[in-house]
Amino acid sequence: MARNITPREKDYPQWYIDVITAAELADYAPVRGCMVIKPLGYAIWEAIHRDLDGRFKELGHTNAYFPLFIPESFLSKEAEHVEGFAPECAVVTHGGGEKLEEPLVIRPTSETIIGHMYAQWIHSWRDLPVLINQWANVVRWEKRTRLFLRTSEFLWQEGHTAHETAEEAREETLRILECYRAFAEDVLAVPVLVGEKTEAERFPGAAHTWCIEGLMQDGKALQMGTSHDLGQNFAKAFEIRFEGRNQQLDHAWTTSWGVSTRLIGALIMAHSDDDGLVLPPRIAPTLAAVVPIFKTDEEKELVLGTIRKLMVGLLGEEEVAASENRIGNDQVQKCFYNRLTEQYVIVDKRETARPGDKFYHWEQRGVPLRIEVGPRDCASGKLVVKNRLDRSKDVIDAADFTRANLDARLDAFQKALFDRGLERRAENTHEIGDYKAFCKFFKKKRGFVRCFFNPSKEAEATVKSHTRATVRLVLNANSDREGTCVFTGEPSRTEVIFGIAY
Amino acid sequence: MARNITPREKDYPQWYIDVITAAELADYAPVRGCMVIKPLGYAIWEAIHRDLDGRFKELGHTNAYFPLFIPESFLSKEAEHVEGFAPECAVVTHGGGEKLEEPLVIRPTSETIIGHMYAQWIHSWRDLPVLINQWANVVRWEKRTRLFLRTSEFLWQEGHTAHETAEEAREETLRILECYRAFAEDVLAVPVLVGEKTEAERFPGAAHTWCIEGLMQDGKALQMGTSHDLGQNFAKAFEIRFEGRNQQLDHAWTTSWGVSTRLIGALIMAHSDDDGLVLPPRIAPTLAAVVPIFKTDEEKELVLGTIRKLMVGLLGEEEVAASENRIGNDQVQKCFYNRLTEQYVIVDKRETARPGDKFYHWEQRGVPLRIEVGPRDCASGKLVVKNRLDRSKDVIDAADFTRANLDARLDAFQKALFDRGLERRAENTHEIGDYKAFCKFFKKKRGFVRCFFNPSKEAEATVKSHTRATVRLVLNANSDREGTCVFTGEPSRTEVIFGIAY
Repeated sequence: MARNITPREKDYPQWYIDVITAAELADYAPVRGCMVIKPLGYAIWEAIHRDLDGRFKELGHTNAYFPLFIPESFLSKEAEHVEGFAPECAVVTHGGGEKLEEPLVIRPTSETIIGHMYAQWIHSWRDLPVLINQWANVVRWEKRTRLFLRTSEFLWQEGHTAHETAEEAREETLRILECYRAFAEDVLAVPVLVGEKTEAERFPGAAHTWCIEGLMQDGKALQMGTSHDLGQNFAKAFEIRFEGRNQQLDHAWTTSWGVSTRLIGALIMAHSDDDGLVLPPRIAPTLAAVVPIFKTDEEKELVLGTIRKLMVGLLGEEEVAASENRIGNDQVQKCFYNRLTEQYVIVDKRETARPGDKFYHWEQRGVPLRIEVGPRDCASGKLVVKNRLDRSKDVIDAADFTRANLDARLDAFQKALFDRGLERRAENTHEIGDYKAFCKFFKKKRGFVRCFFNPSKEAEATVKSHTRATVRLVLNANSDREGTCVFTGEPSRTEVIFGIAY
Repeated sequence: MARNITPREKDYPQWYIDVITAAELADYAPVRGCMVIKPLGYAIWEAIHRDLDGRFKELGHTNAYFPLFIPESFLSKEAEHVEGFAPECAVVTHGGGEKLEEPLVIRPTSETIIGHMYAQWIHSWRDLPVLINQWANVVRWEKRTRLFLRTSEFLWQEGHTAHETAEEAREETLRILECYRAFAEDVLAVPVLVGEKTEAERFPGAAHTWCIEGLMQDGKALQMGTSHDLGQNFAKAFEIRFEGRNQQLDHAWTTSWGVSTRLIGALIMAHSDDDGLVLPPRIAPTLAAVVPIFKTDEEKELVLGTIRKLMVGLLGEEEVAASENRIGNDQVQKCFYNRLTEQYVIVDKRETARPGDKFYHWEQRGVPLRIEVGPRDCASGKLVVKNRLDRSKDVIDAADFTRANLDARLDAFQKALFDRGLERRAENTHEIGDYKAFCKFFKKKRGFVRCFFNPSKEAEATVKSHTRATVRLVLNANSDREGTCVFTGEPSRTEVIFGIAY
């Protein structure tokens, strides 16, 4: 067990901070509620960005950029929206040494300013659909913050689309929801539930909000992405109108959807252990860390020479030579394993750290595979492969240090990680039909509770006040089974998931 | 000549706006001085980002993210820095409905907050070098703005490195300068001069500022990138100290360097013509636009069928099928020509526009090649390739519609564009030795003036007040030739470039 990481059992919130600190993912900023995303944390965000961006573009979306500043009056145009966001806004009152005529809000989300622009861009059904996404920073002034999960400034993507019909907008909302699900499960290896939010939990101004929801190791729920069908609400507030095929003016149907750097929090909470970060191979910036082991200068020469040959065998002379030209090559040599996904295999050449320290170092940073090469291995043509997830240690022939071998190990790692998540979720999902048992459960435990429930703002507020639990999502609004509402005992066809959320 | 674009000769600033509007690169935002970067403009920025980011990483840099907000007191820690930036700052005074204890400045650049963090991260020579870059938005409140060239909010990258010695910091500054030069010339096809700024034009707080400087079509100079050797100035202001190899505490040597969305302005001003945008193939999001020409339904079927076969021959069945699954495929079909660089070949299938309109449409958007396919071409197995730059029209065999053929055309286009820029610069660079002639030149003309000059803040201010010209860069601080200073007539070994800058 790492001495700089508090065990989960002992203090889960402290464990979370310790994992972040040990892995050097992020740091608190000198501005309250803001964070600095350090290189490893940012490399994970780049991997998330790269993968999702490709998925959006594959579907036909393009990116654009809208201003950071929103005139305060814009926010008020959609009644629910301003109520939801105004209390969290950061406000610019001065610019260039002068007081501004109208204060500017720093975007907490961009429906309003984008709606204003779309009203100018969209005139006819021929201009539709508009399929734009933005990668940006947003600010929501938070009283209680937690690195990655809830910070005053965070990075995210926000898609904003406009369509000719209600059906097309709904299709888009669900298409993106499926895109988020596939990404969370196939890439992040976090199993998620998918469903609609109740009215109480809906995005301010949306007609329907859909979400993906993950279960963290402490049994709390984490909302990992949302996709909103905005109906004509924002189109009416911002007058996004178009001439239809029937020559009639109509309001466009819009959607918005987003995921944020919160996903890095999800990765940490879902996978890491008491030894630090665990990353799924499909998102890990470094896939394998090679640690040379030697004592004498003679051994050093032998071991580093052998490692160079191994790396050339794996990646080719050109790639290895390029890595030797990088600044810092004498410390940690970074070789591209995959240039497209910017994933590295590194050789830890630091002479100021011992092999054991290096093992800890890369383990805490979530590198899936560790390769150990010592003088005896060089003599016998062997090397050691250590798996970060199951801690297995394989001695393999140097000739087997190939892309096929590593890829197979990484694929198995990815699958095992997802399967472990599925198991944990199954263990921590409970069907409870009785409100007394429901309250008792949340008094002591955490997890997903599946039950019948007739959603209403009042009922949900009462349940929350009793248990802190909220409806995470509606699994099935029209179940084949007929049950009774866990709260009222009335007949219900609505199956929901309750949980205590981050 | 396009009717929606004012000719350069008539009104150059209006031409610039018209090109941006016609190409749908950007739009004015409802907040004064801010812009919306529309999908084509943003795709160009993505291409710039992708290419430069790869270069930085190839050299060993990583990305990170620092907060948008900087405590006002940070700015004051470096005396020249605060003087340079304080007048341009946007200030947040309220957050979450409350007045803040200390106002927050929105980053105009991040030396101060990054310096503050580096002081906490760097303790020993073993922690050096730190090689971090950030892609971010910054805000500088501008009185007079111009899309891409000068807006209150813009996007940029800012590298911030810390080193053990003055030499290493200087090497880094010059390494990045060369990286910028190569990018500007090889990718953007804009010839640039490279040199050091005079003290008067230096970055506030830097020991040395180096830059690349391009010449626009109106003869004005545009600073396209800067690389600053900050000496120990910021390290002293923010106490970035480390224990050296000699066990002594020393201040680190830091650098910073950046390019911004201004480069898109450079692209437009350097290459475009009275028909609209011209883009270098290495940065153009769309490389070729295929325009089907038909009248009857029968012809339509024939032409679209032929185009599909051509596209499959060029890109493969899988890629074409994927493009047919994208939303909006029935309007403009986007097929990846190069997935790595996200460059497309598109088929303009819109039935609401005539072929002639489509020709204009893609011409104004700077697509390097246009492919025309009509019924007669289908019958004869031919197609037409139109070159956006030299306006040549080639009739080629359908069998020659290959990657090799297109690549060769695009390479030739790229080279011709750069060569044209070199020629223009040669024509507009003048050696002038006499101050009277110097003043007379800038009274009527624009261009680079090469001369000997002994830099001093006072002399430069006087020259500027007479001519509006400033020293764009020092070409050679220690010339083999001995000349006389154009301003004082005294002996000088310093060769500089004067110009009127954007």
